[in-house]
Amino acid sequence: MQNRQVILSRYPDGHPRAEDFEVVSIDMPGPGTEEVLCRTRYLSLDPYMRSQIAGRHISGSIAPGDAMRGESVAEVVESNHAAFTPGQLVRGFGGWCEYFTLPGSALSPVNPGLDRPSLELSLLGMTGLTAWAGMIWQAEVKAGDRVLIPAVTGGVGSAAAQFCRLRGAEVIGTAGSEKKCAYAVEALGALACINRHEGDLAGQLDQHFPGGIDVYFDLVGGELLHLASERLALQSRVVLAGLMAEYNDAERAPGPPPGFWIRARATIYGLVVYDFEPRRREFVDTCLPLLREGKLDQREDMTDGIESAPEAFCRLMHGGNFGKVVVAFP
Amino acid sequence: MQNRQVILSRYPDGHPRAEDFEVVSIDMPGPGTEEVLCRTRYLSLDPYMRSQIAGRHISGSIAPGDAMRGESVAEVVESNHAAFTPGQLVRGFGGWCEYFTLPGSALSPVNPGLDRPSLELSLLGMTGLTAWAGMIWQAEVKAGDRVLIPAVTGGVGSAAAQFCRLRGAEVIGTAGSEKKCAYAVEALGALACINRHEGDLAGQLDQHFPGGIDVYFDLVGGELLHLASERLALQSRVVLAGLMAEYNDAERAPGPPPGFWIRARATIYGLVVYDFEPRRREFVDTCLPLLREGKLDQREDMTDGIESAPEAFCRLMHGGNFGKVVVAFP
Repeated sequence: MQNRQVILSRYPDGHPRAEDFEVVSIDMPGPGTEEVLCRTRYLSLDPYMRSQIAGRHISGSIAPGDAMRGESVAEVVESNHAAFTPGQLVRGFGGWCEYFTLPGSALSPVNPGLDRPSLELSLLGMTGLTAWAGMIWQAEVKAGDRVLIPAVTGGVGSAAAQFCRLRGAEVIGTAGSEKKCAYAVEALGALACINRHEGDLAGQLDQHFPGGIDVYFDLVGGELLHLASERLALQSRVVLAGLMAEYNDAERAPGPPPGFWIRARATIYGLVVYDFEPRRREFVDTCLPLLREGKLDQREDMTDGIESAPEAFCRLMHGGNFGKVVVAFP
Repeated sequence: MQNRQVILSRYPDGHPRAEDFEVVSIDMPGPGTEEVLCRTRYLSLDPYMRSQIAGRHISGSIAPGDAMRGESVAEVVESNHAAFTPGQLVRGFGGWCEYFTLPGSALSPVNPGLDRPSLELSLLGMTGLTAWAGMIWQAEVKAGDRVLIPAVTGGVGSAAAQFCRLRGAEVIGTAGSEKKCAYAVEALGALACINRHEGDLAGQLDQHFPGGIDVYFDLVGGELLHLASERLALQSRVVLAGLMAEYNDAERAPGPPPGFWIRARATIYGLVVYDFEPRRREFVDTCLPLLREGKLDQREDMTDGIESAPEAFCRLMHGGNFGKVVVAFP
């Protein structure tokens, strides 16, 4: 049986381009003991993958010749594991490929009652769990907090904005276009959204946070982390969850002056979502009902077929996506 | 009645020099309603004063012509406040001067039963409270933690080292000479002490923290904050309490790359000791018995008379002090 997968063909020079990847055909063996053969239905593409390529990610590195990794929703084709049967939908780290085998212990059944199974990769998946862990468990966002969320229409940002809104907090987002900003306010419930390509960013932050920033969900690092740190309210919280602004750089960039944080008596949390896997059930039990009741919105930026994955990923790294980036497999 | 006080005569260019200060004589009025006239006995000199001169301190700025501020232990000379009587020893922000008046509400009685009243400015004072707030209340140091404490023989450092040791943690200090290092190990109970002028700092940290740093008490910022952040253990804590390394600089320096903290899932706390004044009683009730039982050591670097204050402060800012810097008034 033949399988197609995407490998990294060479290290990107700065922003990745589609030519840095290659779709290759390989032989696909059947599943071994306790293993399950799956056919990919949806693949999640996320900024952290750029960090894997840069060799700086917690989950390990990807070098030229290596297969691209990622979380997917897939259909069981053949199972040597008692918990799974053919036709069943599962979630697991299948990677950028049409078929994969994983031990049954590395797979989870997709939650029943979802509008569409791809939600298992966004609101109910790693991006949703990241947002929940950062905003609810770490920063403990509460009614009245004014929260700054960058890339607010993206996967993590849009989940975070809605979770904060549900807690009674006021969200100011940033996004890369007027259209995205309108969506943030209308669909996600943000109080306002700053178009990061228009006008003076520092001045707009001053305007939207007259009393300072209570919570900043840092998904980007770089300039915005500096500007936000300079404007923190007393007893504020900063969750460090990503460094989008520097994933494409060869070197780690320095952070904001620590004096900003001392002055604000801030608490800063480093967030790695894998640590919160043991609490996923708790998160899903809260979110799934909200999702079923239509209280949460999830916009997806969906492309079709494995060939579309490299280009979709490069677009994501340029901020060209509008919503959570997912590749659908026919 | 004549009083002598120290004023800042000009802004220091980098490291302060004694000529940047001036001792001036002024007329001293008697105490007003509810006020208390005090004669200074001991004055605390601390690195944060350099930050006040740089205009970056939470407590406000000091400009040329302004009197230098600071906490002191003093004797009541004349009192218009019911709680205080002449001859009584009190603690308050009297400043660098021989006499001062303050409202009675701004004074506290010195704790009874102390070996020497100057302890009210060190272990039992702001430096002790800073160490307790950072290590015990924020970082929650526990048995088995390996803790890095810079300037470990200084006021805050020596208190922190002993509090950590009492909790069963292992302390590695840094200090500026072999003599200070020996004191840190012998008198403060540090497991080891790195002479920051000898050998490769990064390599020595690697050697003393094979499993990473569990808690870092940052009193200095700069290079050590970077090196420590790079070597944090999982779930580590960093308390940001001072920026000694940059107090003499005109600009705020950037901090370490945030990726170090994400990788370690660290929690970073900004510490301003004033926030913990409401809990001072709780701290004193724990520490005073330990002090009386001889379980805590406090080395003081004491000079005599108001004229000695500028030079003692400049020496402190060069790391030339050995122990908590206190000026005794005859």
